[in-house]
Amino acid sequence: MEKPLVGIIMGSDSDLPVMQEAAKILEEFGIDFELTIVSAHRTPERMFDYAKNCDKRGIEVIIAGAGGAAHLPGMVASITPLPVIGVPVKTSSLEGMDSLLSIVQMPPGVPVATVAINNAKNAGILAAEILGIKYPEIKKKVAEYKEKMKKEVEEKAARMENIGYREYLKEREVNN
Amino acid sequence: MEKPLVGIIMGSDSDLPVMQEAAKILEEFGIDFELTIVSAHRTPERMFDYAKNCDKRGIEVIIAGAGGAAHLPGMVASITPLPVIGVPVKTSSLEGMDSLLSIVQMPPGVPVATVAINNAKNAGILAAEILGIKYPEIKKKVAEYKEKMKKEVEEKAARMENIGYREYLKEREVNN
Amino acid sequence: MEKPLVGIIMGSDSDLPVMQEAAKILEEFGIDFELTIVSAHRTPERMFDYAKNCDKRGIEVIIAGAGGAAHLPGMVASITPLPVIGVPVKTSSLEGMDSLLSIVQMPPGVPVATVAINNAKNAGILAAEILGIKYPEIKKKVAEYKEKMKKEVEEKAARMENIGYREYLKEREVNN
Amino acid sequence: MEKPLVGIIMGSDSDLPVMQEAAKILEEFGIDFELTIVSAHRTPERMFDYAKNCDKRGIEVIIAGAGGAAHLPGMVASITPLPVIGVPVKTSSLEGMDSLLSIVQMPPGVPVATVAINNAKNAGILAAEILGIKYPEIKKKVAEYKEKMKKEVEEKAARMENIGYREYLKEREVNN
Amino acid sequence: MEKPLVGIIMGSDSDLPVMQEAAKILEEFGIDFELTIVSAHRTPERMFDYAKNCDKRGIEVIIAGAGGAAHLPGMVASITPLPVIGVPVKTSSLEGMDSLLSIVQMPPGVPVATVAINNAKNAGILAAEILGIKYPEIKKKVAEYKEKMKKEVEEKAARMENIGYREYLKEREVNN
Amino acid sequence: MEKPLVGIIMGSDSDLPVMQEAAKILEEFGIDFELTIVSAHRTPERMFDYAKNCDKRGIEVIIAGAGGAAHLPGMVASITPLPVIGVPVKTSSLEGMDSLLSIVQMPPGVPVATVAINNAKNAGILAAEILGIKYPEIKKKVAEYKEKMKKEVEEKAARMENIGYREYLKEREVNN
Amino acid sequence: MEKPLVGIIMGSDSDLPVMQEAAKILEEFGIDFELTIVSAHRTPERMFDYAKNCDKRGIEVIIAGAGGAAHLPGMVASITPLPVIGVPVKTSSLEGMDSLLSIVQMPPGVPVATVAINNAKNAGILAAEILGIKYPEIKKKVAEYKEKMKKEVEEKAARMENIGYREYLKEREVNN
Amino acid sequence: MEKPLVGIIMGSDSDLPVMQEAAKILEEFGIDFELTIVSAHRTPERMFDYAKNCDKRGIEVIIAGAGGAAHLPGMVASITPLPVIGVPVKTSSLEGMDSLLSIVQMPPGVPVATVAINNAKNAGILAAEILGIKYPEIKKKVAEYKEKMKKEVEEKAARMENIGYREYLKEREVNN
Repeated sequence: MEKPLVGIIMGSDSDLPVMQEAAKILEEFGIDFELTIVSAHRTPERMFDYAKNCDKRGIEVIIAGAGGAAHLPGMVASITPLPVIGVPVKTSSLEGMDSLLSIVQMPPGVPVATVAINNAKNAGILAAEILGIKYPEIKKKVAEYKEKMKKEVEEKAARMENIGYREYLKEREVNN
Repeated sequence: MEKPLVGIIMGSDSDLPVMQEAAKILEEFGIDFELTIVSAHRTPERMFDYAKNCDKRGIEVIIAGAGGAAHLPGMVASITPLPVIGVPVKTSSLEGMDSLLSIVQMPPGVPVATVAINNAKNAGILAAEILGIKYPEIKKKVAEYKEKMKKEVEEKAARMENIGYREYLKEREVNN
Repeated sequence: MEKPLVGIIMGSDSDLPVMQEAAKILEEFGIDFELTIVSAHRTPERMFDYAKNCDKRGIEVIIAGAGGAAHLPGMVASITPLPVIGVPVKTSSLEGMDSLLSIVQMPPGVPVATVAINNAKNAGILAAEILGIKYPEIKKKVAEYKEKMKKEVEEKAARMENIGYREYLKEREVNN
Repeated sequence: MEKPLVGIIMGSDSDLPVMQEAAKILEEFGIDFELTIVSAHRTPERMFDYAKNCDKRGIEVIIAGAGGAAHLPGMVASITPLPVIGVPVKTSSLEGMDSLLSIVQMPPGVPVATVAINNAKNAGILAAEILGIKYPEIKKKVAEYKEKMKKEVEEKAARMENIGYREYLKEREVNN
Repeated sequence: MEKPLVGIIMGSDSDLPVMQEAAKILEEFGIDFELTIVSAHRTPERMFDYAKNCDKRGIEVIIAGAGGAAHLPGMVASITPLPVIGVPVKTSSLEGMDSLLSIVQMPPGVPVATVAINNAKNAGILAAEILGIKYPEIKKKVAEYKEKMKKEVEEKAARMENIGYREYLKEREVNN
Repeated sequence: MEKPLVGIIMGSDSDLPVMQEAAKILEEFGIDFELTIVSAHRTPERMFDYAKNCDKRGIEVIIAGAGGAAHLPGMVASITPLPVIGVPVKTSSLEGMDSLLSIVQMPPGVPVATVAINNAKNAGILAAEILGIKYPEIKKKVAEYKEKMKKEVEEKAARMENIGYREYLKEREVNN
Repeated sequence: MEKPLVGIIMGSDSDLPVMQEAAKILEEFGIDFELTIVSAHRTPERMFDYAKNCDKRGIEVIIAGAGGAAHLPGMVASITPLPVIGVPVKTSSLEGMDSLLSIVQMPPGVPVATVAINNAKNAGILAAEILGIKYPEIKKKVAEYKEKMKKEVEEKAARMENIGYREYLKEREVNN
Repeated sequence: MEKPLVGIIMGSDSDLPVMQEAAKILEEFGIDFELTIVSAHRTPERMFDYAKNCDKRGIEVIIAGAGGAAHLPGMVASITPLPVIGVPVKTSSLEGMDSLLSIVQMPPGVPVATVAINNAKNAGILAAEILGIKYPEIKKKVAEYKEKMKKEVEEKAARMENIGYREYLKEREVNN
């Protein structure tokens, strides 16, 4: 594995089913990353060390996911000069509103680039867009990805128009 | 000043108009405290050092106030073995709901004893109640305080019943 | 059983699946507790008596759980000089927001130390932290517990880094 | 003064500017009432005694106003067999949502008849409607009041249609 | 059947699983009631007629349940001089918050006595409490009901204290 | 005045400062309208008559504004076959969320075309767009209005780019 | 198929299970429509073209459904002079509140006629009501539909009154 | 002026008082930017052109601010391959919650890097952090800025500890 450009961290291994989507999309873009657990609350020193050193180790963007009183993204952002992307993970209460507000409402001076609740895929894409300003080949891949998405929607739209919505729904049920 | 038992910290000096109420009630109870600014986001090392050492310096209860994505109480709680009381400070948006959720919704393992939005006075009283289990004279003062509150309500009630609500409202407007 | 230091009460036996976590963690810490049902709304006299006498019986911290218009923690706090920890229990509507606000938004003079929705485990840990200022052996156990938590996270992190996130997810599914 | 039929209570004299509207409308209906301060949190015994005895003293309906973690209406309802009307008073945070949920979300067995945030006038009217099922002269007065309201709206509507909305707005500004 | 004293109405037959609890508790109290569907939105004339005539037919309290933009309780309250109890029915979105606000936030002049989301049982009890100011035998039954509730809680508490919380949980699972 | 095509109604004359914007934009489009007060809660018969007859009188679109438990738009929609546009008026609590949910969350069968909180201007524009499918001259005016809006934005943008944001802010302060 | 009068579009084929209800009710009214996928975010040019040209192709009303940060209805409304009906689709977080606010809170100048969360059926009915001001036969069908709804409610009400609520519930369970 | 690296756009000139903070902090960092009005709703073509071409013109990061149903950041993000930072501007209702959800809750494929409500300053800092991965001198400036912030907090903390909180508050009032 090459030296990773993106560090994906999460507060608990229970966040992994959500956070794996960031990893998968980075794999799709061919961007090297590392992925581990760093808990702001249960391993504060580890969090501190991680945030302090990721920059020196060559990481260029951090993706941090956490739920509830989600302090990991903001704390890492307070220590590293790197851009930090925050993923609010939906936990068992409040529909993820607590995670969202704990991550996005950062005070002046310490931004966290927040994406939608549970949307780790977008965190990966945003990391790629950020890296894209430095690495033209990544920028190209993001553009291709968006083109592919567009195609998929157009194909689905053509299919729906072609066979009608009732048939489309049946097909969709079969495929899911 | 005696060795302080309570450490009052806040994320910004803009929180002081709210947080001073914790100090005032502790003064009323005759409990020594220290009070300073410790920002989780702008001074993470200072926060770390404070949380790491307060216990050794003889502090027994922490009161931490912060607003927005309020990480100070939870981060201090993750580092110190002392009980940490969190005061959600109301900032300019969302009526303090962001502060409340960022403080109260802590994950298993790291509790923060959260009080009402902007209610630093209650943080001071709660600190006194906690210290009261160890220091009988503080427990007595809390009991006296509750008795005094009761008296005040009873006197106001008697006055209202006596002069009628219309007169009472007039008196109240004059006094405010 | 020794004389209990913690009183765990709940508004209804339907709260027990949530509230048992407070009991279990206190058992883990070796702290004696009592546990019973006290409904502010259906047994107000019982609630009154409980709150009035718990102090005299040697209880030093109260943990009170309730849902909806959750009045139990606040009412007990209004009667006893002991610190009261409130656990907002999530009921069938509003995701526990009603329970949270009914418990945390106490008026000046009567604090409730509120923990996260359904997080009775943290109520138990907070009780231990509070007792820890008086009983050094409890303080030591809390510190050990936090150390153990840290270890567990570090082990999981090492495992995840070692086998990769895909394998880790498979293992996790097998174990759950 | 005759023996009062309605007991208006509030958690603090700071609720009086809101709660006086209940008193005024009862005066308009010629219904005798008493009005005082009863704090569930600061005077729990007083609250208990009030709730225990109001029935015996001839009170038939209770109107209870409180804000924040508003426990007064629900606690009184848990003690008295009388119908209790709750007025959620808007305090300085959360737009009164905390007061509303703390009053309305009562558990099975102990209802509180909740009206709109700060709408003590409606609490008075609801009390009159309840008394109206027993006292025909009160029922008649409620009907007359509704008729009067209707007339006022119709007159305003006629005026607005007559002079046009621009003139009406000017008149309204002058009158306010 | 005797002449009913309570009219239970609901906006749709899909509300019946919730609203039946009002009927059942009235049966338990031996209070005659009628129960039917009256939709403010799909049968506005029927709603109008119902609200206009219920008083003349001898109904003394209305219980109205509805969900979403729940207009039935408020509209009936605008037409009848009787007290109207509103039950916010939880529908498939927004956790019942829409139903609650649409029912409770009535303007000055037209109160609806609102109970908790989906808590039709409490609507039935509130109706009984209201009727109790006129019919002493109903008042007595409400008092007995509250006494019974108290007993049940006390018995459960005794059982829980006796066998311990672990055994109690097992018994509870078996019974549910 | 020509026969009006749009009926603007509001629940109270206190809604007029908000609702006048609907009238003004219709005047700008040269669309005849009528404007009056119709309260669902205080004048239910008047509301009923209005909704029943507006169609026959030649009205083609209704704009109804109301606040709190805002039933006017939905009730009118339940009676008339005409499209009804609802304007949630912000009242003194809950930031208009109650008004919005009471208007938009209509059950299947009875839609209300809801616009933004307090945005009566958009209600007027939506009425014009609806009428525009029948009256080409109105459609043309809507298109011209959108063109004019575009021009205004472009001019402001040019000015801002030209003089810089600091100068622009100064000019803007002078003009406001 | 005739030239369609209504264009139903949705941001993703995952919205189809919700959006099909708009299609079905239009079929019931005999109104020709087209239905396809147009994603504001993944196919912005397609969205632009669709919005630019629907008017010229004879479409008279647009129904647009989307979830989360739902931009489709508002963007189409910013481009076309036609009335646009927005359907907030409930996604996996926040109970559809995000979808609702993203659609309804449009700025002055660009209204979207918003219906309830997931209520695509009402979008279809609203489209029919709008078309009804131009096409008398559609207006007649809407009136007949409302009449049919009324009948259904009345029949259910009669059945419930006839067999009692307990039997009715049993029948209902059998039928569902 | 050099070729700008950052494009700051806003939906309306009424957003400028908030958005100027992004400009000011970029000036402080010595980063060239352009700033203008681009309304997704009132100038959709302009928005389209801007988003289509900013990349080619050398812009590397976009900052887009908007309020209410805030579509500008998300729409620009759907068209450009550049990273887009969204600033939710607080408008007159709902405390900015509508702006926040409309910006952050983007669907898979099109992320917007969302910062706190009204926190345009953080948008500027985030832009600098992003640019910092490519331009070492910008990265250095961000690090210096964070160092400066830290110093300021430490100085304030020292002052507060030195003169006591009461004196500090007095000084603070004088300075504000």
